[in-house]
Amino acid sequence: MIRVGIVGASGYTGVELARLLCRHPKVRLTVATSRQHAGKLMSEVYPSLRGLVDLVCVETSGAALADKADVFFTAVPHQTAMAIVPGLLEAGKKVIDLSADFRIHSAEVYETWYQAHTAQEYLEEAVYGLPEIHRQHISSARLVANPGCYPTSVILGLAPLLKAGLIRSERIIIDSKSGTSGAGRGAQVGSLYCEVTDGFKAYKVAEHRHTPEIEQELSSLCGREVVVSFTPHLVPMSRGILSTIYADLQEGTTAAQIADTYRDHYAAETFVRLCPLGTYPATQHIRGANFCDIGFKVDARTGRVVILSAIDNLVKGAAGQAVQNLNLLCGFGESEGLLVAPLFP
Amino acid sequence: MIRVGIVGASGYTGVELARLLCRHPKVRLTVATSRQHAGKLMSEVYPSLRGLVDLVCVETSGAALADKADVFFTAVPHQTAMAIVPGLLEAGKKVIDLSADFRIHSAEVYETWYQAHTAQEYLEEAVYGLPEIHRQHISSARLVANPGCYPTSVILGLAPLLKAGLIRSERIIIDSKSGTSGAGRGAQVGSLYCEVTDGFKAYKVAEHRHTPEIEQELSSLCGREVVVSFTPHLVPMSRGILSTIYADLQEGTTAAQIADTYRDHYAAETFVRLCPLGTYPATQHIRGANFCDIGFKVDARTGRVVILSAIDNLVKGAAGQAVQNLNLLCGFGESEGLLVAPLFP
Amino acid sequence: MIRVGIVGASGYTGVELARLLCRHPKVRLTVATSRQHAGKLMSEVYPSLRGLVDLVCVETSGAALADKADVFFTAVPHQTAMAIVPGLLEAGKKVIDLSADFRIHSAEVYETWYQAHTAQEYLEEAVYGLPEIHRQHISSARLVANPGCYPTSVILGLAPLLKAGLIRSERIIIDSKSGTSGAGRGAQVGSLYCEVTDGFKAYKVAEHRHTPEIEQELSSLCGREVVVSFTPHLVPMSRGILSTIYADLQEGTTAAQIADTYRDHYAAETFVRLCPLGTYPATQHIRGANFCDIGFKVDARTGRVVILSAIDNLVKGAAGQAVQNLNLLCGFGESEGLLVAPLFP
Amino acid sequence: MIRVGIVGASGYTGVELARLLCRHPKVRLTVATSRQHAGKLMSEVYPSLRGLVDLVCVETSGAALADKADVFFTAVPHQTAMAIVPGLLEAGKKVIDLSADFRIHSAEVYETWYQAHTAQEYLEEAVYGLPEIHRQHISSARLVANPGCYPTSVILGLAPLLKAGLIRSERIIIDSKSGTSGAGRGAQVGSLYCEVTDGFKAYKVAEHRHTPEIEQELSSLCGREVVVSFTPHLVPMSRGILSTIYADLQEGTTAAQIADTYRDHYAAETFVRLCPLGTYPATQHIRGANFCDIGFKVDARTGRVVILSAIDNLVKGAAGQAVQNLNLLCGFGESEGLLVAPLFP
Repeated sequence: MIRVGIVGASGYTGVELARLLCRHPKVRLTVATSRQHAGKLMSEVYPSLRGLVDLVCVETSGAALADKADVFFTAVPHQTAMAIVPGLLEAGKKVIDLSADFRIHSAEVYETWYQAHTAQEYLEEAVYGLPEIHRQHISSARLVANPGCYPTSVILGLAPLLKAGLIRSERIIIDSKSGTSGAGRGAQVGSLYCEVTDGFKAYKVAEHRHTPEIEQELSSLCGREVVVSFTPHLVPMSRGILSTIYADLQEGTTAAQIADTYRDHYAAETFVRLCPLGTYPATQHIRGANFCDIGFKVDARTGRVVILSAIDNLVKGAAGQAVQNLNLLCGFGESEGLLVAPLFP
Repeated sequence: MIRVGIVGASGYTGVELARLLCRHPKVRLTVATSRQHAGKLMSEVYPSLRGLVDLVCVETSGAALADKADVFFTAVPHQTAMAIVPGLLEAGKKVIDLSADFRIHSAEVYETWYQAHTAQEYLEEAVYGLPEIHRQHISSARLVANPGCYPTSVILGLAPLLKAGLIRSERIIIDSKSGTSGAGRGAQVGSLYCEVTDGFKAYKVAEHRHTPEIEQELSSLCGREVVVSFTPHLVPMSRGILSTIYADLQEGTTAAQIADTYRDHYAAETFVRLCPLGTYPATQHIRGANFCDIGFKVDARTGRVVILSAIDNLVKGAAGQAVQNLNLLCGFGESEGLLVAPLFP
Repeated sequence: MIRVGIVGASGYTGVELARLLCRHPKVRLTVATSRQHAGKLMSEVYPSLRGLVDLVCVETSGAALADKADVFFTAVPHQTAMAIVPGLLEAGKKVIDLSADFRIHSAEVYETWYQAHTAQEYLEEAVYGLPEIHRQHISSARLVANPGCYPTSVILGLAPLLKAGLIRSERIIIDSKSGTSGAGRGAQVGSLYCEVTDGFKAYKVAEHRHTPEIEQELSSLCGREVVVSFTPHLVPMSRGILSTIYADLQEGTTAAQIADTYRDHYAAETFVRLCPLGTYPATQHIRGANFCDIGFKVDARTGRVVILSAIDNLVKGAAGQAVQNLNLLCGFGESEGLLVAPLFP
Repeated sequence: MIRVGIVGASGYTGVELARLLCRHPKVRLTVATSRQHAGKLMSEVYPSLRGLVDLVCVETSGAALADKADVFFTAVPHQTAMAIVPGLLEAGKKVIDLSADFRIHSAEVYETWYQAHTAQEYLEEAVYGLPEIHRQHISSARLVANPGCYPTSVILGLAPLLKAGLIRSERIIIDSKSGTSGAGRGAQVGSLYCEVTDGFKAYKVAEHRHTPEIEQELSSLCGREVVVSFTPHLVPMSRGILSTIYADLQEGTTAAQIADTYRDHYAAETFVRLCPLGTYPATQHIRGANFCDIGFKVDARTGRVVILSAIDNLVKGAAGQAVQNLNLLCGFGESEGLLVAPLFP
């Protein structure tokens, strides 16, 4: 039994990690920190966990924290993560960081989109934790930077076609839509039920912080610098991301080639499911599960392919992918504890 | 490995059974029937199951059907069930029937609320499949009548207090609220998104068919005839039932006695969770799981107790309870395949 | 043109008042106060009002405030209202108070359920602003206490039957369900989209502050003290209240008598609509409108009638009723500015 | 008083027309046809209309129908409309057709995307009823082709920039999202609450029938043939469309130029509202109202502008725009009966 800890257990990513870990056959959740809820049972903060997680939230940090587990999930905001992760690594622990702090290789790019980076010495070491792309490096990593939710859906949708050279890397447009849990559990007017329900809107148009993360990985995949348009939207639902991706086809590319390329690329992947031709993914069909569902349509009129990619933002987009990374780090079966069926309806 | 079959696999109860069974460590789903979708993959009908359930819906019936599994779940409408179940039993199979056809012991009562009963010879043998009440009988049953969703929430909420004599059996009022999946997957205007969302209403006021089922079990629990007011309502959500139950307290009954009684009664039950005093259950905290959460409030001003009882109508109210019954029937651990954490948010 | 002002314009009741008043043919909205948003346009706080309400929120109070309008709507929390209302009255203004501060005639009862009352001298004068019951008094009032949302739905449902002596006044049980806008626009975790959606729960069981208000009015209607069980619930929708009310029938009361009584009682009422026998109200059919829809079912098995009463909590349950009171106060047609059709779907 | 009739009154567009017309000061709704509900009161089919619309649905057609009103709204499916409209015109009536049958000027294009056209002789005469673009022609028309919901949001968002030459007409990408009422009131599994809620998906990718309508109008605006990528999506909400539109900027175009162009272009338009710079429209802020809200973001990194355009699909996207056209046809004030405030929350 590996002992695992959650730093920042009171957010939606925290409870989702607890949900998955409490049923994982090879790990034991031994510590959960929360400044806000220190002293309370996890099951008081999240009654869904009653009878399943018997742990009191603590405020422990530093060496006392490091002692309590072998691997840590840091589910705290960016900037907070960079203050905590180094200590855990120095104490000899492995860390899967769910913030943005170690995802961007270039400190300069990070500081352009976020703020100053105070733990730059770990940027090179950190492995971008998208198993379908970086599986080998993750297995031997000490620090895994768990990908953002939007980038996960986008990169998995584009990678096979970019690598195979079937689409052009210029002029990619990404129109993404996310459920409200992505905004976290903070008490903000904009996240209230009455503000969100029966409504739809865009936000951070052309300036969302997941943009550089997407561009870094796409650039790396096709060996040249990629610049994308990226627009996130807020959907009146709790979970799920659907990305609609527009790319220009290389001349002569056919739908059959694209289908074959996806099939070859993802044949061995447990967590990527391809939609039969003519059908498209829907977030309600991956609710609560670690899948990324992908479909596409070739549009001969415009010479473009439209790629549709769906994930549950809290699972494949956060906690589930983090557990997948844990499994790789620890040498477990990659799908251990993760093969639950989506909840539909 | 026990082979199990689902008769009527294309409804919401069918897909929920498939969701639970495909991850159950001791059974193999070997047949799924659907008249409407015969010839299609289950995962075409329900893309959520892609990669998890590799089965084609068939229209098989009779002996050919019976051959395909050891235990059958019949998830068909009432009246249809009574035509199918006898054949399966005669072929030596065990059956867990999710319809209403074998829940009511009295053919006369059944025929008053439903229609003619053509398999009355099985009414006596059928065991009402509420494990927390009838565990012993279920273990040795051949035919289990899986309880209705509303009755499950109501009976679990009232049983301890009625048995302990802390409340009066006259004048019980049950005000229940259910998610829309309870109406099934039939294409009806009343179940359309636009008709249900952002709305709330009662239906079948004082004439819902779950009334006699509730009265039968409550009468049996307290040894005298119980007549209740029962009003179901439709909530704009997919899953979940909350029952608000009003009962007159026997003179002198205290909140502490009630709390103790619940605790004693359900101490050994995995799937009943008691809310800490002053807190109440919420359907969002049992979404996708087999729990029944119970809370209560003693109202000294009126001499009543208000009991709140929440389940997921598709799990503890249908497919989950059916799997719990399967586990009892087959001698498996009662929570085998069922201990998933609720999905929140 | 009467000049009207809204004190506390930034909550959901405030924006709803603005929505109705900006289209009212006989009034002009001349001032809107908001501590939190002082200096901002109303249409910045609520973009829905863009192009319709051209007013900057101010923090004005006292005489400066009183000067700005002839009639004031005070849409602030209880306890705050009692500090503001007296000043406006003393300045010769009329006030329609949407808080609870002047609804309860007895200071003692008020202080039992709320906190100390510092403007008790106005309790006797204040008129409980339910036009269908107290129309005459409202017309000549200086201070109208606009009813609570739950009480409005409950009292309109029960009044005709209680007055006609068709039901017993003991053992009335009220099970009410409300949309989330009733919780206001405060930034609280419990009101977040992800906490509310796809869920249902009770709150303040047997201790909600609308209880004494309901009991006061029902007692007054039938001339004896009425004590009720009242349980509010939270529905995943923005607007709407449905109250399900259980009352014991006086011996011999028939469904026809009840139907006749409702019809006679509400024949001249524009804003009460009776559902055809066998049908029940639904909140989605009164969305955005000032109607109260009422239906009922006589249950011979239990000797009870079940009354269903639906309103939009922000309209007939708050701002719409306040405008109806304004119309009475000012001698306008009672439905002036209020006869909009519900928004369905 | 002009007499108006609704042909096909039982769909969501029908009830929305009834909602708006019953409060319109200058018209009287005199006939409503519905094959399915003939003989029923409109208020039985739509209880929201109780007390407001006192009309029985009839199955009348031909001359008997034409006699009953002066102007007709045909709210029937495409192909059905082309069979009904000619008769009404020949009887000397004016028609506002809400189907697609008379929107496309070219019979060839129509037949490519739809089916054979049997009333081609009216294609030239029909005026595309987008008042902000074709106001003059509408005023004197006999047959108005009321625009599709998606095209309305798209064309209003693009028109000023295309006409001013600030953006390029090649490579426009339109990613639209619609509420579920757009799918109509047909009893289909795909429109059930449980299939739609808490989910998001694309449909008819690159093959939706509104594409040629969008291309026709954009081509006409900029004087050269425009081909667009258009992807519609289904949002779990009742009403509302948001279109996210990507266009390449002509070299040198600035955000200030774009803002000025929009302001100039729409200065006199009652129903187009521009969002302050840095803010974007949200469908919840135009719910139930005839507005089109527009915002934009210039993205210097990619040389694109992202335009966000929101409407209520049943109002500005259908019934509201139809009433706006009626007002033009009849010489009423263009906003007569339409200046209701959006319903928020």
